[in-house]
Amino acid sequence: MKRFDAGQFRPAHFLWSVEGKVGTITLNRPERKNPLTFESYGELRDLFRDLVYAPEIKTVVVTGAGGNFCSGGDVHEIIGPLVRMQEAGDMSGLLAFTRMTGDLVKAMRHCPQPIVAALDGVCAGAGAILAMASDLRLATPRTRTAFLFVRVGLAGADMGACAILPRIIGQGRASELLYTGRVMTAEEGERWGFHNRLVEPDQVLAEAQALARQLADGPTFAHAMTKTCLHQEWDMGIDAAIEAEAQAQAICMQTKDYGRAYRAFVAKEQPVFAGD
Amino acid sequence: MKRFDAGQFRPAHFLWSVEGKVGTITLNRPERKNPLTFESYGELRDLFRDLVYAPEIKTVVVTGAGGNFCSGGDVHEIIGPLVRMQEAGDMSGLLAFTRMTGDLVKAMRHCPQPIVAALDGVCAGAGAILAMASDLRLATPRTRTAFLFVRVGLAGADMGACAILPRIIGQGRASELLYTGRVMTAEEGERWGFHNRLVEPDQVLAEAQALARQLADGPTFAHAMTKTCLHQEWDMGIDAAIEAEAQAQAICMQTKDYGRAYRAFVAKEQPVFAGD
Amino acid sequence: MKRFDAGQFRPAHFLWSVEGKVGTITLNRPERKNPLTFESYGELRDLFRDLVYAPEIKTVVVTGAGGNFCSGGDVHEIIGPLVRMQEAGDMSGLLAFTRMTGDLVKAMRHCPQPIVAALDGVCAGAGAILAMASDLRLATPRTRTAFLFVRVGLAGADMGACAILPRIIGQGRASELLYTGRVMTAEEGERWGFHNRLVEPDQVLAEAQALARQLADGPTFAHAMTKTCLHQEWDMGIDAAIEAEAQAQAICMQTKDYGRAYRAFVAKEQPVFAGD
Repeated sequence: MKRFDAGQFRPAHFLWSVEGKVGTITLNRPERKNPLTFESYGELRDLFRDLVYAPEIKTVVVTGAGGNFCSGGDVHEIIGPLVRMQEAGDMSGLLAFTRMTGDLVKAMRHCPQPIVAALDGVCAGAGAILAMASDLRLATPRTRTAFLFVRVGLAGADMGACAILPRIIGQGRASELLYTGRVMTAEEGERWGFHNRLVEPDQVLAEAQALARQLADGPTFAHAMTKTCLHQEWDMGIDAAIEAEAQAQAICMQTKDYGRAYRAFVAKEQPVFAGD
Repeated sequence: MKRFDAGQFRPAHFLWSVEGKVGTITLNRPERKNPLTFESYGELRDLFRDLVYAPEIKTVVVTGAGGNFCSGGDVHEIIGPLVRMQEAGDMSGLLAFTRMTGDLVKAMRHCPQPIVAALDGVCAGAGAILAMASDLRLATPRTRTAFLFVRVGLAGADMGACAILPRIIGQGRASELLYTGRVMTAEEGERWGFHNRLVEPDQVLAEAQALARQLADGPTFAHAMTKTCLHQEWDMGIDAAIEAEAQAQAICMQTKDYGRAYRAFVAKEQPVFAGD
Repeated sequence: MKRFDAGQFRPAHFLWSVEGKVGTITLNRPERKNPLTFESYGELRDLFRDLVYAPEIKTVVVTGAGGNFCSGGDVHEIIGPLVRMQEAGDMSGLLAFTRMTGDLVKAMRHCPQPIVAALDGVCAGAGAILAMASDLRLATPRTRTAFLFVRVGLAGADMGACAILPRIIGQGRASELLYTGRVMTAEEGERWGFHNRLVEPDQVLAEAQALARQLADGPTFAHAMTKTCLHQEWDMGIDAAIEAEAQAQAICMQTKDYGRAYRAFVAKEQPVFAGD
């Protein structure tokens, strides 16, 4: 079986740290509010793909350095080269780029680890997409989220936003954000169901990691099944989804964690889960 | 045509009463907060299946006795036997169980009667699923709803929760509840769109029955069509859904209730609907 | 290429005006709260179909005259004739009507222009559907929205409501509105994500037109792609939606607006978009 040694991973374009069963990605170009580049897109995509083969990592936190999450695709390092591709009529180059960015979202949805985003300050463009593609989102009162593709002349149809964002905050609110590119304030984000919780800026990473640790200490085989089902039932009818979950849950009932929970209950103890 | 005589039905594992056109299910093991057993699951499934053949019952209320709705699957009567199936490697037994529970939700979504849940106190595990699978939910300030499968080592993927819950409260909030198993307070439930309304504990059953009566006095053929369309359009595209509703509504325009409504309007009277 | 000269269009059953790149539809039978008739349904459907061929119109505003949006299908001019069709057993006539109304919603979702609804006062029945089928909705504190089909003996399954409304306000709230036909207050509409914003009655049309102008001055080729993707991804899985958006956004990266945005950014200027 393929294995990915997450503890030894040293990315070139962001920070990666492992504490216990939790891996943390930190976008780390704080002087520019942590924009993405071709290279960091690719390296993030590869990491999330590799995490399928890192069974010791149970949950992932994504955050940004210096009080901001991510300002999106770098204007000089991404938009400039893409405009030059346009000028050169390089459609295959443009499509290769949009597919690479989409592949990052696919990889985030396909890895078994629940992803917790810790969002502060600017959360814009591809940064807003990374937040959207996470499973859970903690933010701060100063988090400003903007799907601002329209401001650079592009569609709101970026990396799955027209499909995913409406399911998180509703079709009407998503339409407004995607057509106008306007900022969703932190208060709106909490009220609309985008942010799970608002915490103070100096606490948001710690709280996200605490939540990630809590999940990592849970029945992680089952968590991965929850993530798979949330994904695969997206476009299923109710009856098909119920059958899918009957099979999924019957599999989970074969795990040792299920027996542990029962025996702990009978013994009036807290269960200790091991993810198997 | 098959008929089910709802007025004569005497279930063994819960209470059932019929008043006028409204049937009320009361989970009735209050000393244990009304947990479900293999038997009550099966009997509930069968009742909802039989209600297809009980045209005189127009709406259904589900509630729990003694200030709680339902604490979910009984630890001793359900989880214990399932763990023993696991130990025996009885996958077909486990799958038979998860399919039976899923069949209960399917039966609730397929019967023509809108279902109104009256929720107080504990609403946990399979109890939270029963609430979710209802059409409308009234709760009280002390209703505590928890999709707590994760706490017994299982996935949030239970009885359709990964498909249905996100459509009620949004993908982000549903993800949090399903991954963490935490309680959704009554206030959150109302704010997030899970509960249609909060009322006082001593009023919740009466209010739910009043709402059920109001619907039962309405155009119940049309209500059943609304329920069918809410179900079948779950994974349809917009254009297909519009054609489905053009056909569905044209059928409803052939009902006597439609003519009654028009003639009552012209006569400046309240329409009296008969469900035909 | 077919062209529709929107500036010369003179509808018989509502008002139509063009200012710059924004077209405004005003339902204009204020003494009856702007009900729809067979003729106005058909003419609205035809206009939205024709707008595909009116590239100079970039956004559309829909509103009603005299302090109300729309009271729905006229009782005497629509419901009466439909009841007579019923009495005559004219199923094909009934289906032709429900398909015509559904075709209006399809045409609204298929035209490339984002539609901004300016809603005041009564917004009921087919009026609520027109609001729902718009992309963005501004309302006033006195806007009262009701999907009141049930009150005339019909299903909530009208013109796509069972598919679309749950995605805007959630399945539980939509179920309540569709089963009971009750009024959604303006405050509920904003809180639930139906209305994007509440403004004062004397400002709602001006604000809707300002928002429409703002969108019309944006990258309108990209807006049309956003609208297409919001529509076509309705029943796609996430992975398929991501691929669809990779292609859609790569197309948008071939527009001149994208180059304009980049060059304006480099020059520290505001981009001027032209929709090409």
